[in-house]
Amino acid sequence: MMPRPVCTILAVNTGSSSIKFSLYESGEREELLFSGSLTRIGLKDGRFSVTDPQGRYIDCERVDAPDHAAACRHVFSWIKRHGPGMPDAVGHRVVHGGPRHTAPEKVTPELLASIAELVPYAPEHLPQALNAIRYAANELPGVFQVACFDTAFHSTMPPLAKLCPIPERYRRQGVQRYGFHGLSYQYILSQLQAEGDPLARKGRVILAHLGHGASMAAVLDGRSIETTMGFSPAGGLVMSTRTGDLDPGVVLFLLQEGHLDADALRDMVNKQSGLLGVSGLSADMRDLLEAEADNSQARLAVELFCYSARKHIGALVVALGGLDMIVFTGGIGLHSPEIRERISAGLGFLGVRLDNEKNRNHSGVISQETSKIVVKVIETNEEVTIVREARRVLEGG
Amino acid sequence: MMPRPVCTILAVNTGSSSIKFSLYESGEREELLFSGSLTRIGLKDGRFSVTDPQGRYIDCERVDAPDHAAACRHVFSWIKRHGPGMPDAVGHRVVHGGPRHTAPEKVTPELLASIAELVPYAPEHLPQALNAIRYAANELPGVFQVACFDTAFHSTMPPLAKLCPIPERYRRQGVQRYGFHGLSYQYILSQLQAEGDPLARKGRVILAHLGHGASMAAVLDGRSIETTMGFSPAGGLVMSTRTGDLDPGVVLFLLQEGHLDADALRDMVNKQSGLLGVSGLSADMRDLLEAEADNSQARLAVELFCYSARKHIGALVVALGGLDMIVFTGGIGLHSPEIRERISAGLGFLGVRLDNEKNRNHSGVISQETSKIVVKVIETNEEVTIVREARRVLEGG
Repeated sequence: MMPRPVCTILAVNTGSSSIKFSLYESGEREELLFSGSLTRIGLKDGRFSVTDPQGRYIDCERVDAPDHAAACRHVFSWIKRHGPGMPDAVGHRVVHGGPRHTAPEKVTPELLASIAELVPYAPEHLPQALNAIRYAANELPGVFQVACFDTAFHSTMPPLAKLCPIPERYRRQGVQRYGFHGLSYQYILSQLQAEGDPLARKGRVILAHLGHGASMAAVLDGRSIETTMGFSPAGGLVMSTRTGDLDPGVVLFLLQEGHLDADALRDMVNKQSGLLGVSGLSADMRDLLEAEADNSQARLAVELFCYSARKHIGALVVALGGLDMIVFTGGIGLHSPEIRERISAGLGFLGVRLDNEKNRNHSGVISQETSKIVVKVIETNEEVTIVREARRVLEGG
Repeated sequence: MMPRPVCTILAVNTGSSSIKFSLYESGEREELLFSGSLTRIGLKDGRFSVTDPQGRYIDCERVDAPDHAAACRHVFSWIKRHGPGMPDAVGHRVVHGGPRHTAPEKVTPELLASIAELVPYAPEHLPQALNAIRYAANELPGVFQVACFDTAFHSTMPPLAKLCPIPERYRRQGVQRYGFHGLSYQYILSQLQAEGDPLARKGRVILAHLGHGASMAAVLDGRSIETTMGFSPAGGLVMSTRTGDLDPGVVLFLLQEGHLDADALRDMVNKQSGLLGVSGLSADMRDLLEAEADNSQARLAVELFCYSARKHIGALVVALGGLDMIVFTGGIGLHSPEIRERISAGLGFLGVRLDNEKNRNHSGVISQETSKIVVKVIETNEEVTIVREARRVLEGG
């Protein structure tokens, strides 16, 4: 077989107030050339930095970008000036694909129009992604662009898992359960396959992406059959600042009695709840773990996070009809042995037995050899999924 | 020991458009004297009927009660005229006790004022209960009245299970997870004790009250430690017309994009969703089971109900750290072997094995003798719990 030709692909991941980007050489494998970010868009003290694969700074400067447009211009013109020529393709993370976009797609005016229609589904994420795609086209003219949807991985879920129990006239507006973190889950599955783990293709696996946003996927024989997030990234698990699933009576009470309007409610549900709302202290798990010995609210927040994770694992195990493996990833899943331990401690009756020493390491198998259920920690890399998908679309495959 | 003296106690259960009542003689046991209801309050073709313990009509007439006040007057004056003298006490089901009322209480002006403050927590139920208490006092003057709270049973839940992951300023308004169907769960536990089932006092039990409203309780060593409903009766399981727990993003989308106001949302979440919303056909499980062979939406609704029940069982099993018994009750739980079977079929990996023949009967043990987990069906009787609690308060115990 001929070795695969090498091409360069830029992966772009826009958040609500940041842009992250990574340039890869994609051949037989993916080789990172540099990665960077522009943070605090629209705020003071923004920072633009780029590092090489060893983490050494290539560039670092203060950049106060007044808006996403300015941020995009800065990022893409830097890449044009400092990169090794124009990339062969740009792949963008697009958080929501709605009911129609269930695979990565070449960016066309029609696709942009279709994504623009989805903005009400993810008003805090899609406008930024659309901006990035438009400015990449301006600054890197003629470069092939691909949209990679974070919802696509879950398009294999059965109709029952996608169904919202509301009247059809609202479901027709696209209100269904989609699920998110698909680019991360796809990477984790590819890593399991690369390790030769047979459970990647055949078995009952829970993938737990626990970061600032947190979700879990139930993967049966390599395909998502259920996930904790639903229509929006606010559903499912208790998260750093998001509520997760709620009794709708709570939302109605706050709307009618708490005198919150829709925007204030959206802000409360997405930005003031979860770990931050319970602790009143921080949205960052590291801060809470540090504080909990002396601060009962911090401890309660950490405990609620683990309790919510355990209960959702219970629900996903039922959807899978049993369990063979749990994989932790995401910032908390990767870096916090305490949280992995406290989630797993309640799952002994299912046959989960962590190895305390292995759990202190941050990757690989962390369960005991006799544990009925294998527990692993794998670092995720959504950018590599974007690079692979962009390349596949570029090559028309 | 002296035999317990006999007293007569009236149990009153007000719904949004009906009043149900039962008069009992309470001695060593509870003996039903008569029970009745006034239905379709505020609508046309209302009906007032009373039957004896054998189900024979004592009275049956058309009564169009324009409002709850008129309905209460009719009911209590009928009881005064036709009952065996004034009852010794009236016990009322009060759906929500808020954070303070965690046991049955004698009705006093202070208690009424306190319940009135809770109306925003349960605007569809509490005003009617308050009405019934006030009219009972008018029509049966001087009779001892007791409020029995449907939330009280779950007051034993640990702080973690009561916690809503929202900022403290909203939790201070009483927004927490309460749980409902407590009078039913308490009756089921008392029946298990009466049967001499040791799991009533020591063990991990899920009580599944599946009716028009549906919830489950996780009972550890005889005490509720978790339940599916939360702040309001709209949370938890997919129900006949209620959504159950939702991604709050769905509510926000319908509020902002679906142009629903708060009242329309409340109506949608409580009255147009669940089995009715998915099937577009009926909120009644019997209709859907009859229709599902030819109607894919009816089938989807039934399947979603069972899937939701199974997933919540998974979550509760984790809260319990394992499982010894499931008890089905409520209209669907008692009368539908198909639903019990379809919920249990997905739980084989936990050790649930139904006996098909026993499951066709509607009470007793329905699991195989070798089933690791015992499954029972028990008919509930909230009125008997009300009678027992009213008597306990009457006797100052």
